[in-house]
Amino acid sequence: MPAKGKVDRRKFLKTAAGGAAGTAAAASAIAAPAIAQGAPQIDWRLVSSFPKSLDTIFGAAEVFAKALGEMTEGRFRIRVFAPTEIVPGLSAADAVSNGSVEACHTASYYYWGKDPTFSLATTVPFGFNCRMQNAWMYEGGGIALMNEFFHGFNLHGLPGGNTGAQMGGWYRKQINTPEDMRGLKIRIGGLAGAVMARLGAVPQQIAGGEIYPALEKGTIDATEWVGPYDDEKLGFSKVARYYYYPGWWEGQAMLNFFFNLEKWNDLPKHYQAAVYSASALANTTMMARYDIQNPAALKRLVIGGAEPRPFSEAVLDACFAASNAVFDEISAQNAMFKKVYDAMKEIRGNDYLWFQFSEQTYDTYMMIQQRKGLV
Amino acid sequence: MPAKGKVDRRKFLKTAAGGAAGTAAAASAIAAPAIAQGAPQIDWRLVSSFPKSLDTIFGAAEVFAKALGEMTEGRFRIRVFAPTEIVPGLSAADAVSNGSVEACHTASYYYWGKDPTFSLATTVPFGFNCRMQNAWMYEGGGIALMNEFFHGFNLHGLPGGNTGAQMGGWYRKQINTPEDMRGLKIRIGGLAGAVMARLGAVPQQIAGGEIYPALEKGTIDATEWVGPYDDEKLGFSKVARYYYYPGWWEGQAMLNFFFNLEKWNDLPKHYQAAVYSASALANTTMMARYDIQNPAALKRLVIGGAEPRPFSEAVLDACFAASNAVFDEISAQNAMFKKVYDAMKEIRGNDYLWFQFSEQTYDTYMMIQQRKGLV
Repeated sequence: MPAKGKVDRRKFLKTAAGGAAGTAAAASAIAAPAIAQGAPQIDWRLVSSFPKSLDTIFGAAEVFAKALGEMTEGRFRIRVFAPTEIVPGLSAADAVSNGSVEACHTASYYYWGKDPTFSLATTVPFGFNCRMQNAWMYEGGGIALMNEFFHGFNLHGLPGGNTGAQMGGWYRKQINTPEDMRGLKIRIGGLAGAVMARLGAVPQQIAGGEIYPALEKGTIDATEWVGPYDDEKLGFSKVARYYYYPGWWEGQAMLNFFFNLEKWNDLPKHYQAAVYSASALANTTMMARYDIQNPAALKRLVIGGAEPRPFSEAVLDACFAASNAVFDEISAQNAMFKKVYDAMKEIRGNDYLWFQFSEQTYDTYMMIQQRKGLV
Repeated sequence: MPAKGKVDRRKFLKTAAGGAAGTAAAASAIAAPAIAQGAPQIDWRLVSSFPKSLDTIFGAAEVFAKALGEMTEGRFRIRVFAPTEIVPGLSAADAVSNGSVEACHTASYYYWGKDPTFSLATTVPFGFNCRMQNAWMYEGGGIALMNEFFHGFNLHGLPGGNTGAQMGGWYRKQINTPEDMRGLKIRIGGLAGAVMARLGAVPQQIAGGEIYPALEKGTIDATEWVGPYDDEKLGFSKVARYYYYPGWWEGQAMLNFFFNLEKWNDLPKHYQAAVYSASALANTTMMARYDIQNPAALKRLVIGGAEPRPFSEAVLDACFAASNAVFDEISAQNAMFKKVYDAMKEIRGNDYLWFQFSEQTYDTYMMIQQRKGLV
């Protein structure tokens, strides 16, 4: 990263060359720093935690970098790197924290092992839906509150996309009662894995590319992933056809941009403002892409033999109770987690009251018409 | 509006003054135009169709102008004006089209009388929910398709906020069957008014400030407005206590920024990019504000005597059939409307299939817990 206020030499030379006389060249030599301070050339590297094959998620970082480049006439340039090009995907936030790279696009909850508070910027079991996560982040104090926490890790965070409510994953056998979770070897991580363990399941940490053979061989019984558009690419329906929903551990999942805190603080204010708006655009665009791509993928999956099945209310009740027990345990030990989670709970309760009126009745009516073939 | 590439004289003088010697001043005189061409000072006026008292909607224009000003270091300055400060609220798009002002923040469907295609950028009866409207606009070709239409009116349009699913308004008497709509004098406009008329209701056009006395005197029987946060301010619950839902004519309502097309085309590309991201931020922020504000307002309304009531399925079925008849009539006469509406219908059908899986079951489960007092 160039130092703040560094002169862009290419631009500098171009400006100088634009003047006809020697006086003009000398002139530019004096005037240029004033230009450069207003809009310095900045080149940042951003590492994504996601492979390019997850094009909807990886694409959100590209949307962000493109928008930022365009609105600064290329002066604030962010190059997006896939995992392993610079650092492994799950080390993205560490690389930003220690300044190896300036920025990353990741899921904050990957770092829950450092502190479970990281989970709250992405998703928690039985948490918000997508609308509510945005409400909390943008207008409910979420961005500020999470940054109070992130700054302790030398990170500044902003929203960076959403998957919406995820599916509950692929299962080789049916899950009809809470007892069916006992001994279930399921590929799932984070807080959701801790909840699963409390229910008697055996959470497994397996990289994306190794899930299919593990399911095929029966080394694992189930896996969670994202939703139809991403799941389809990995072909899980061929080896585990029960496709449960909802993904109660991801009623939404927000992706996150992290910036090295010192480098963020060094940015001119107008570049910070540009980053804020560009990340909001990426946040909206990613959710929009999924909402366009998921329906067609779901249809193809079902035609190919996938069997969507809802979790029973009894299963969800057991999972909900186990989740609350996990949250109580963490809250008792971690004041920051409790502070943030309590703030979120208040908005969750309010919005799940309010959404029962027009939002839910409207959607329900429209879904009835869809089933009748009328929309 | 200053001409494109106009030198910012204040900045110019400041830069010149910054040089110590006479050579430096001469230097700036040569170098300055190169600076100004990159980031010209632009001052635009934006008229809002909404009074400041609708602070969530009016505020979206302020969020937009503030973000744009911040990311351009104040070089692209947009001043936001309330209705009547320059032109009446419902003339906002005309004023932009004819160049009296450069921009406005309005609801495209106000102009449906010119062409019903204008409605589609805001909302139509039994159309999208908020997620789907964003999906269509940002990733389903909506922004491009609507601009194909808007350009014919010398306007360039971008999303500018959302109300979410609106409530169905305030009624002095109960609406239990479709027959109860006959003769109902209801303050409602646009396509929704045309649908109401087909059901035998008598749609009324009344300005915001005149609705309360009309309801109180019984000159009208009902009124639609927005949702709890905005409705509360006008006090309708005192004179028409039945608060029906869902607002089937506004499953979402997107606000719109319009820019004078020539002035939009004259903008440097990086300013266009800045406008695109800043408007996306405003779009997200407005929905977020409503989701934070509406629940508390709803609680206060109910404590104050409002009686929320769902429209029956029979009433909704009659409204749905009437809406489809209106759409068929318009589509038969208006090729552009048909082209856009057909594109939207495809996404609507797909998303209302897909949302039946995780989105709806997740939200439904959480609402059950809310009713149990567990969230």
